[in-house]
Amino acid sequence: MENQTDDAAGSAMDRLRRHLAEISDVEKAAGVLGWDQQTYMPPGGAEHRADQLATLSRIAHTWFTGDTTRDLLDAAQADAEAEGEDSDNAAIVRRNRREYEISRKLPNDFVAEMTHASILSNEAWQKARRTDDFALFRPHLEKMVDFARRSADLYGYEDHPYDALLNLYEPEMKTAEVKAIFDVLRPAQVAMVKAIGEKPKPRTDFLARDYPETGQENFGLKVVQDFGYDLSRGRLDIAPHPFETDFGRNDVRITTRYDRHMPTQAIYGIFHEAGHAMYEQNVSERFSRTLLDSGASMVFHESQSRLWENVIGRSRGVLTHYFPLLQETFPENLKDVTAEEFYRAVNVVKPSLIRVEADEVTYNLHIMLRFELELALICGDLEVKDLPDAWAAKMREYLGITPPNDADGVMQDTHWSSGSFGYFPTYALGNVMSAQIFDTALKAHPEIPDELARGKFDTLFHWLVNNLYVHGRKYLPKALAQKVNGQPLDPHPYLAYLQQKYGDIYGL
Amino acid sequence: MENQTDDAAGSAMDRLRRHLAEISDVEKAAGVLGWDQQTYMPPGGAEHRADQLATLSRIAHTWFTGDTTRDLLDAAQADAEAEGEDSDNAAIVRRNRREYEISRKLPNDFVAEMTHASILSNEAWQKARRTDDFALFRPHLEKMVDFARRSADLYGYEDHPYDALLNLYEPEMKTAEVKAIFDVLRPAQVAMVKAIGEKPKPRTDFLARDYPETGQENFGLKVVQDFGYDLSRGRLDIAPHPFETDFGRNDVRITTRYDRHMPTQAIYGIFHEAGHAMYEQNVSERFSRTLLDSGASMVFHESQSRLWENVIGRSRGVLTHYFPLLQETFPENLKDVTAEEFYRAVNVVKPSLIRVEADEVTYNLHIMLRFELELALICGDLEVKDLPDAWAAKMREYLGITPPNDADGVMQDTHWSSGSFGYFPTYALGNVMSAQIFDTALKAHPEIPDELARGKFDTLFHWLVNNLYVHGRKYLPKALAQKVNGQPLDPHPYLAYLQQKYGDIYGL
Repeated sequence: MENQTDDAAGSAMDRLRRHLAEISDVEKAAGVLGWDQQTYMPPGGAEHRADQLATLSRIAHTWFTGDTTRDLLDAAQADAEAEGEDSDNAAIVRRNRREYEISRKLPNDFVAEMTHASILSNEAWQKARRTDDFALFRPHLEKMVDFARRSADLYGYEDHPYDALLNLYEPEMKTAEVKAIFDVLRPAQVAMVKAIGEKPKPRTDFLARDYPETGQENFGLKVVQDFGYDLSRGRLDIAPHPFETDFGRNDVRITTRYDRHMPTQAIYGIFHEAGHAMYEQNVSERFSRTLLDSGASMVFHESQSRLWENVIGRSRGVLTHYFPLLQETFPENLKDVTAEEFYRAVNVVKPSLIRVEADEVTYNLHIMLRFELELALICGDLEVKDLPDAWAAKMREYLGITPPNDADGVMQDTHWSSGSFGYFPTYALGNVMSAQIFDTALKAHPEIPDELARGKFDTLFHWLVNNLYVHGRKYLPKALAQKVNGQPLDPHPYLAYLQQKYGDIYGL
Repeated sequence: MENQTDDAAGSAMDRLRRHLAEISDVEKAAGVLGWDQQTYMPPGGAEHRADQLATLSRIAHTWFTGDTTRDLLDAAQADAEAEGEDSDNAAIVRRNRREYEISRKLPNDFVAEMTHASILSNEAWQKARRTDDFALFRPHLEKMVDFARRSADLYGYEDHPYDALLNLYEPEMKTAEVKAIFDVLRPAQVAMVKAIGEKPKPRTDFLARDYPETGQENFGLKVVQDFGYDLSRGRLDIAPHPFETDFGRNDVRITTRYDRHMPTQAIYGIFHEAGHAMYEQNVSERFSRTLLDSGASMVFHESQSRLWENVIGRSRGVLTHYFPLLQETFPENLKDVTAEEFYRAVNVVKPSLIRVEADEVTYNLHIMLRFELELALICGDLEVKDLPDAWAAKMREYLGITPPNDADGVMQDTHWSSGSFGYFPTYALGNVMSAQIFDTALKAHPEIPDELARGKFDTLFHWLVNNLYVHGRKYLPKALAQKVNGQPLDPHPYLAYLQQKYGDIYGL
């Protein structure tokens, strides 16, 4: 019952690649089962599916964390390095060794205990959120915070225990770096929110009219195909919690959900997931069936979803170009609306309770709030029992609103319930990266804005493919940022983007 | 990289069941990938999918055929037998040992060589069929016949090499038994075809009108839900080659294809696949994640698809009951049609070239032709080069028609191209079994025909569930036939069914 790598044919590198390819196959197969579970699986299938996914996940995990992986990495290392530091094989060995070592840090018993607790915690959260009962969730959350702290100790860190958690989602990212970036953004974004709040609101009434699903889907698919999403290697389905998933670069799927009276949800959801999908579709095929066959990190991935959703999809140029098609698709709804009114409506800034519904200006503040609370929890500066009050205080400070309850406050996101601490910052850092990458592209191709306003995306798209997408996970994020932008992650381009765009819209 | 069974917890039977459960999970996962491949996978995904399926299939095969399976079977045997011959555990050990032993008969190199040849052969067949070029297919078919003969020798047999092939699809079925059954059916069915050919044809013009897909789907789904197909544990999708597939008894899916001008294709296709699906949905949950979690054999499975499709779905009582709904669904198409005309139209008998389009009276003759040719090929009484002529001669003898070409003659089916010899007879034997089982049910519940005519299916359905479906693969076919019908497979009920039904329709 060993996997194929028992077969000793070929070089050590061949054997390593075969071993990793089979692990990748099993993981992608689990991905297909996951996609089906979220889209088409009949309700009765849930229990079978849990068994099947557990078995596939156990196979992939056991194979990857087993001694064979280490032995093959050791055996292949010298040859891979001889091909040069920048060779694919050197990168494959390097990245797999990194993930292998991380995977061995937590003892199996600890992982089993944590997984079990996180399932109970997630169930408790679902119920607590439904009944707005934080007391029910509190003991579970306390356990999950404790697991996160113990995980940080087991993973190890130099400066801050939170670094060990960040590193799981964004390799090498440090707490101090996140803080420095947020310290630039926070005061400026809080000030913008306040200034915008004193200005007249743009008209948005027409966005609540009745937009049939078919029109939303057709329009969304037309635009993302123009962007560069290849439907011969992808598809769009409906899912209650939209996502992008891929089973190899030539089968990259997206999902969305429709609300007839909130067309922006599906349309911008499609743009967002297509941003993720275009990245995956264009990772070099040299990396197929390896760990490098994916976007570089959470921050880079989110930078592309937010780039296509917001920087491109919510730009005046692109919206003006597509507005006639929108009017044609929904003639009754948009006959009394101008392109400029539509542009302003989809960019309306309005402090709100829920992160996933937040606009560009307020979004990062939702993230900073979570980051600061996570940090305080992990350091022991904040106890779980005081979390709802701390949450409410920061909501007032940053957004000027007070949550009417915990369900739409501290319990709105699923992440903490399953022990994901260190994940949230990547959302805001993705925004930051999106503007920085767009700036770099514009320096190389100043003609891009004019092209976008004509619905021509190929210059930008090919620049992104060639400078970012093809590399997959060959480079760690810091090295990749240097390669793409020539400098580290920097909040100033994003701030400038926000100030220019919203200064113009709101006359600040 | 051993599977879970390294874990020594529990009794030998517990360990065996855990081992088999994980193999079952991997096979079901492969089933999900196969379903997706036939329904929703974008064209680009084909190569990735082939890799993923190959890896999953290799895992399941390696685990099942490995020494661990034998060791666990040996270790569990005594305890299982102590529970009694009729216990689930005894059946699990018995059936797995049987399949294990069969799986070890063919050397790995032989299987690899045969698999490779069958892929090339299938490709050649596709091209040869498209271009009607039997000469192109001939050398491949010669190889596949040779592999089939060598397989038979490797599997071993007592009476006839063809027995070894039959046994792969229908455990313990003998060539002599098939011959005896076909010898009863052949002259009677040939005579019926001839007699019917001399009678006036029923009216069928209205079946070629334009029937929108939605109406076909809604009607088909309504009826099969009435039959007993549970959509909370199943679903219907579109596939070019319709099939039923299941990932456990609570996730059993069917597919169909629509032709607006041939509504009977989709509607009876849905009935047929739902027959398979109801069987799978009602295997006892005690057999979940074991080899017993499936219909007993090809013949039993086909008996249920044909029972619901034909014996029930093409009966006068059921069609008369649903005709008002059909008229409501397709008012323009059926306003000048009576229920009796519809009944006769969907039961029209007309010798035709293509097996999959054949009616109840001619269908078995298509099968007998293939069975006789297979037998002659395996025995060496017929050479592949003479196959087209032999085919044409039998078509004339049994159905009175001559194939205008080989594409719609000897090359119409995919089975031989991939080396499946011994499979075809199960289709005809399924018909035979369907009538025999229905007769048994009627003896227990003479009220069934009246109920069916009122659209009430639960007496029949529950009788089938309790007397057949729940048993899954616990019993081998002969023992199960004895258990269900109290006698072996017998062609006379089917013949009586055909003679009564078509004698009435055609006034024979």
